[in-house]
Amino acid sequence: MSMRTQYCGLVTEALLGQTVSLCGWVHRRRDHGGVIFIDLRDREGLVQVVCDPDRAEMFAVAEGVRNEYCVRVSGLVRARPAGTENAGLNSGKIEVLCHELEVLNPSITPPFQLDDDNLSETTRLTHRVLDLRRPQMQQNLRLRYRVAMEVRKYLDAQGFIDIETPMLTKSTPEGARDYLVPSRVNPGHFFALPQSPQLFKQMLMVANFDRYYQITKCFRDEDLRADRQPEFTQIDCETSFLGEQEIRDLFETMIRTVFRNTMNVDLGDSIPVMKYEEAMRRFGSDKPDLRVKLEFTELTDAMQDVEFKVFSTPANTKDGRVAALRVPHGGELSRGDIDSYTDFVKIYGAKGLAWIKVNEVAKGRDGLQSPIVKNLHDAAVATILERTGAQDGDIIFFAADRAKVVNDSLGALRLKIGHSDFGVEKGLSEQAWRPLWVVDFPMFEYDEENSRWVAAHHPFTSPKDEHVDYLEADPGRCLAKAYDMVLNGWEIGGGSVRIHREEIQSKVFRAMKIGAEEARDKFGFLLDALQYGAPPHGGIAFGLDRIVTMMAGADSIRDVIAFPKTQRAQCLLTQAPSEVDEKQLRELHIRLRTQEPAKTV
Amino acid sequence: MSMRTQYCGLVTEALLGQTVSLCGWVHRRRDHGGVIFIDLRDREGLVQVVCDPDRAEMFAVAEGVRNEYCVRVSGLVRARPAGTENAGLNSGKIEVLCHELEVLNPSITPPFQLDDDNLSETTRLTHRVLDLRRPQMQQNLRLRYRVAMEVRKYLDAQGFIDIETPMLTKSTPEGARDYLVPSRVNPGHFFALPQSPQLFKQMLMVANFDRYYQITKCFRDEDLRADRQPEFTQIDCETSFLGEQEIRDLFETMIRTVFRNTMNVDLGDSIPVMKYEEAMRRFGSDKPDLRVKLEFTELTDAMQDVEFKVFSTPANTKDGRVAALRVPHGGELSRGDIDSYTDFVKIYGAKGLAWIKVNEVAKGRDGLQSPIVKNLHDAAVATILERTGAQDGDIIFFAADRAKVVNDSLGALRLKIGHSDFGVEKGLSEQAWRPLWVVDFPMFEYDEENSRWVAAHHPFTSPKDEHVDYLEADPGRCLAKAYDMVLNGWEIGGGSVRIHREEIQSKVFRAMKIGAEEARDKFGFLLDALQYGAPPHGGIAFGLDRIVTMMAGADSIRDVIAFPKTQRAQCLLTQAPSEVDEKQLRELHIRLRTQEPAKTV
Repeated sequence: MSMRTQYCGLVTEALLGQTVSLCGWVHRRRDHGGVIFIDLRDREGLVQVVCDPDRAEMFAVAEGVRNEYCVRVSGLVRARPAGTENAGLNSGKIEVLCHELEVLNPSITPPFQLDDDNLSETTRLTHRVLDLRRPQMQQNLRLRYRVAMEVRKYLDAQGFIDIETPMLTKSTPEGARDYLVPSRVNPGHFFALPQSPQLFKQMLMVANFDRYYQITKCFRDEDLRADRQPEFTQIDCETSFLGEQEIRDLFETMIRTVFRNTMNVDLGDSIPVMKYEEAMRRFGSDKPDLRVKLEFTELTDAMQDVEFKVFSTPANTKDGRVAALRVPHGGELSRGDIDSYTDFVKIYGAKGLAWIKVNEVAKGRDGLQSPIVKNLHDAAVATILERTGAQDGDIIFFAADRAKVVNDSLGALRLKIGHSDFGVEKGLSEQAWRPLWVVDFPMFEYDEENSRWVAAHHPFTSPKDEHVDYLEADPGRCLAKAYDMVLNGWEIGGGSVRIHREEIQSKVFRAMKIGAEEARDKFGFLLDALQYGAPPHGGIAFGLDRIVTMMAGADSIRDVIAFPKTQRAQCLLTQAPSEVDEKQLRELHIRLRTQEPAKTV
Repeated sequence: MSMRTQYCGLVTEALLGQTVSLCGWVHRRRDHGGVIFIDLRDREGLVQVVCDPDRAEMFAVAEGVRNEYCVRVSGLVRARPAGTENAGLNSGKIEVLCHELEVLNPSITPPFQLDDDNLSETTRLTHRVLDLRRPQMQQNLRLRYRVAMEVRKYLDAQGFIDIETPMLTKSTPEGARDYLVPSRVNPGHFFALPQSPQLFKQMLMVANFDRYYQITKCFRDEDLRADRQPEFTQIDCETSFLGEQEIRDLFETMIRTVFRNTMNVDLGDSIPVMKYEEAMRRFGSDKPDLRVKLEFTELTDAMQDVEFKVFSTPANTKDGRVAALRVPHGGELSRGDIDSYTDFVKIYGAKGLAWIKVNEVAKGRDGLQSPIVKNLHDAAVATILERTGAQDGDIIFFAADRAKVVNDSLGALRLKIGHSDFGVEKGLSEQAWRPLWVVDFPMFEYDEENSRWVAAHHPFTSPKDEHVDYLEADPGRCLAKAYDMVLNGWEIGGGSVRIHREEIQSKVFRAMKIGAEEARDKFGFLLDALQYGAPPHGGIAFGLDRIVTMMAGADSIRDVIAFPKTQRAQCLLTQAPSEVDEKQLRELHIRLRTQEPAKTV
């Protein structure tokens, strides 16, 4: 009665001599010496089906099938003739001699070959159903599933409970822009889609669930970059009664387990921990890519009295920075290379790119080749050579500007050179998985535009115990119990110990100039919850899309999402978003601002 | 370093003599003979902590703690004094002699006692964080998690893959009302939140994923009844290359496995299957509650020539029905009971409730007590007694009207009587789990208002192979490959074999008077997908909220959802939905229709 007895890709020599029924798609059909060969494909792979003309009825069907026809085959598993085995296929030692062939559904000619690797993204997303048939997309989504399932297994074993939090929730215009949902029953009122379940998971801790997780959609209405989608999936976790270190241990074990069980990758016994301050100092980034072996050298203090204004001005400015990046073997870079790097750093706001080629370090100043070295006094030159550990054949690049510009531009240059063909060839980067915890983030960043401190992580992050007094005295010095997990330069997860006492939460709001009334209006339900014996708690959220993208080696998170949106936030397959009936708008108590007329019913 | 070594509820005599650290909430604090007893609660349960005054510092802390304070205790596990054991507690044989007591967070006085069972729903939802601390809610959400996890394990073992489908999708104003999400990037355009992932899961089948599932939120903007929420959770499944029977087998095994593994309930070896037509005939319902042993008796044909117009008119009307419900021992019902049942059936549109008490069946007409029997000729009376199998002491109720009114009113009466104290006492219903498949649903229902056929299930449901010709000739006769799983009168799941051939899909649209252009506009992406060798496929969706509500014996699905909405679609905890800033509306290219001013920034 069953349409099939086996998956195509799982028919092997273990079934020799047996009759099997298979269902799948015609991947390729070849007519060879009067015999028709069909490569039949299902989700487990391909099998070769041989259609002999001696079964006339079946053969007539075989003559009619085309690529992507959905068919059912029944036939005999037999060994392939010696010399025609295909070691690249799981089923490569056998073939199926076709007895019956039924077309379950024909196919019109597909707009592209499934094995065409040069399709535009527009083509792929428009014909997503066919694009998803491609083996790479099949593998990506199955990997995604396995990752999610490994996460669930691990968290289940650790006593975590998946609890669903609302999708229709309250708009709190902090952070990113909300997606809004007009309420029909409550005119003039709107739900927001959650940017994260942050407050709900904290309330679940107050409610004594102790360990919570959820693999859930989050929404941010932001302009999209390559690695962003309007809706994305978080592995969202929270636990009570654990300290920062314990929380990190719990979740780094999770990540190590997932990598081991899905990718057979060993991330090492323990993930190194680096303070935010050190990461910025050495790499100019709070998510340093440790595969690249280049590091910054701090020079701000040593450049305050040089004649070269490009260096001395930022060196003497609050918030200025002068830093160097030594590139071993960089002496081999051509003037053209250096020019293109100069253009590159300008993207990040740098005004130029100073450099020194170290021809012969033993000769000091005379062994250097550089447009700038004449403007640096001997002590400065000596300090540069000493601190960078310069060796013959190196090039040293410099950035001098506001710290942010230095970090961004020299940080980007570090990655650019490290991952360039030159960098790979010279061993300046490695192929590896290099995870890292970055910890001790600042509590606040200063928002120049609005002259106030804003939360660097989110306003529910706990300050370090010994920094609570800074909340009022010097918010900029206050560090947080926050931690990010970084992998190869991507932030894959971030979290913190949360504030569990109402008076600390209120202090944090005050430090951010959020008044008592505003705080109550926006977060009253959290402040209330904290008053009923809220437990110490903390957690983390991992970006599932991003983790799977890295694992799959995909170019974009769109390659690990079944039905993604374009960078214009559109679904090319279903044509969402779309216009709606005027009646729908009326029921929701809204009207359009635009001139475009709504369709009338 | 750890705050705790054990969960409170898991400290047993196995730990006698050991020092433990516990964290939790003060459930109750008693001062007894100069000693303070604290019942300490965490998610695993309670443990008794004894605070002796001989440790003065600790004792002073103990004197200060109040209910719902969050505290950390460390102390010695010792046996309770003989005679003070509490068999109702897992930890009832031991107590913890407190050495250290730390207040992690105090609590203001809660607005209610956690063990108060008479709280209004408004109070519970407003203070949901405290309400969730109640043991019943803890158990309900843990049961919900276990059910979901058992589903995942089963489907994983069967080769199903969880694939996420979009939350921001296309509005298709079929079926229920959509929740809409205005697009910022595409002015005048809207996303819709999914009513179900139906079309996406079908496209995943066309895309060769073969077996898909997802436990996912769905959204319907309908006026809410007791068992409805704006967002609800579906266990959504789809598979390729299986027939109707195979699909049902796969998923009834899932449900049986889940009941066994979470509730230790055996649902039997196989779930009975009943045709829609039979269910309506015998029970007046397509989701009959088989715990109730009462059944309809069909009398339409036998009442066409009786004098009693109340019966003969519907019996002679197309779409009319006359049916009886025999209630064993119903002769004991008082006139007051009968009057109240008469009022009850009026809720369902019945104009009255005819009845016959069967005092002595052997005496025929003379053995009956009834206001109506005088208007029925002898043959009609004989038929009634024979077909109902009337016995002395029974009452027979009658409904005669349009079939829908008969089914609704007599069906409701059947449940009302069966589950009444009388019904339970007389064995007219049982305490049991009575699952059932209802199959062979009609493809279409006639929409009188718009004079057209509409899909009874959804328009992607496959007709029975032998009924394809009815699509054009007689849509009302056309049955579908659709099936519902019914449990104790609730529909817990529903699904169908889908249409996989484009020409059948187009015929179904035509039968529903959906023109080619409209079909293309709304479902073009599906029609396209079907043309590329779509496989035979089908599936089912189960309502997780409802299944867990039944398992938990809860009054409402709100008791198995952490943060539900009220029947006014509001969250009393966070005050969602809420007003939003004018700036937000402007960015979304919409304005309010109402008079209420939006807040200005």
